Amino acid sequence: MAQQQRAIGTRAAIIRGAAQAFREHGYGSTTLAGLEAAAGVTKGALYFHFASKEALALAVIETQHESSIALGAEYLGSTRPGLDAAIRMTFAMAKTLRDDPVVSAGIRLTLEASNFSVPVAAPYIDWIDMCGRLLRRAIDEGDAAAELNVEAAAHFISPAFTGVQTVSEVLTGRDDLYQRVEEMWTLLLPGLLSAALPAERRANLAALPALLRHDYDVAGRTRTGPAAPGA
Amino acid sequence: MAQQQRAIGTRAAIIRGAAQAFREHGYGSTTLAGLEAAAGVTKGALYFHFASKEALALAVIETQHESSIALGAEYLGSTRPGLDAAIRMTFAMAKTLRDDPVVSAGIRLTLEASNFSVPVAAPYIDWIDMCGRLLRRAIDEGDAAAELNVEAAAHFISPAFTGVQTVSEVLTGRDDLYQRVEEMWTLLLPGLLSAALPAERRANLAALPALLRHDYDVAGRTRTGPAAPGA
Repeated sequence: MAQQQRAIGTRAAIIRGAAQAFREHGYGSTTLAGLEAAAGVTKGALYFHFASKEALALAVIETQHESSIALGAEYLGSTRPGLDAAIRMTFAMAKTLRDDPVVSAGIRLTLEASNFSVPVAAPYIDWIDMCGRLLRRAIDEGDAAAELNVEAAAHFISPAFTGVQTVSEVLTGRDDLYQRVEEMWTLLLPGLLSAALPAERRANLAALPALLRHDYDVAGRTRTGPAAPGA
Repeated sequence: MAQQQRAIGTRAAIIRGAAQAFREHGYGSTTLAGLEAAAGVTKGALYFHFASKEALALAVIETQHESSIALGAEYLGSTRPGLDAAIRMTFAMAKTLRDDPVVSAGIRLTLEASNFSVPVAAPYIDWIDMCGRLLRRAIDEGDAAAELNVEAAAHFISPAFTGVQTVSEVLTGRDDLYQRVEEMWTLLLPGLLSAALPAERRANLAALPALLRHDYDVAGRTRTGPAAPGA
């Protein structure tokens, strides 16, 4: 049992180390020697846990995907209105992209995954699905327009976030990511909100992205934790 | 002179061949032997023109970027209203992504380019800039809202398209790309259009994405050329 615990710990440590190496060099340019060094284990230990570089990359993607799904589930399960939860979820995701090496490595590997023998589609499908469920809730709550095509909207918003974080990474190393997420929602909200929405609720929703950007910027500078979904 | 012409022809043929290889295998998994085979030239000829795999990948990106910029310039230089031109430009770009191997290879390499010693930011910056110029024209023409934050909107729309085509590639091999571009504009237009826009013009702009999707779908099935920007 203690041995099994140790093996699980070693496996997690290898994944964390590999994430650092993949994050820095990308899939193609990361060597097995580089993975051994980054994970701080012998070749024997590495191969005991992972059969190949691809198996290790897929484990990083899976770990990142699990933590992203857990993050999404927190917002889906919160008592917040659906649209609030959707907006907050993208900021929380932006934060993990900036701060968590396993997440940024997982996203990078997912983008590069056409190198792999098995295509990696699940993260995209799951994010579109979570976004769709929050939008459906927003319609039920009267925030989103009843005539909104939820499938189409979710299938745009989630990929749009993918593009926003990709370009933010290339142009600024994700320094401007909170700003870009705010701008994304500012442009999207008019196409989402119900025409019958009371002016006060409309104003509150319109103000939320700027508010969250401010909070995350301050939290980033003061190194406090992320805002909890229920906070 | 004939020799110089021949060298230019060989260089272009190498780039086309390399684009096929990079498109299929990605940067990391493409070998020099694979590049020689795809380009149909000897190792000597390959090295005469390109010093390394990275130099060849950058040439593919540059060739793709030049043709994308030329496509953008066609729409910028057309007499169409700015917003029409912006919508049409994204469909034309979607078409080249589906049909032109140098373009799809260039986009793939640009996404993978954090592997390279020099980061590839110019395509993102140029597309944001072109999008911004068309939106500014749309404000002058009264289609886009005067209070629109053009810099923010352009800095969202262009990355959003990047994400849309990435996810379309992963989930459907870009089969659903025209549909997704239509849905993107349907969701974006309410946040872009001027509140003072006459109902007829508003209806025409709102109908344009579905119209273009239909035209491109038909053109794709009948293998006719792309719609010209002035058509």
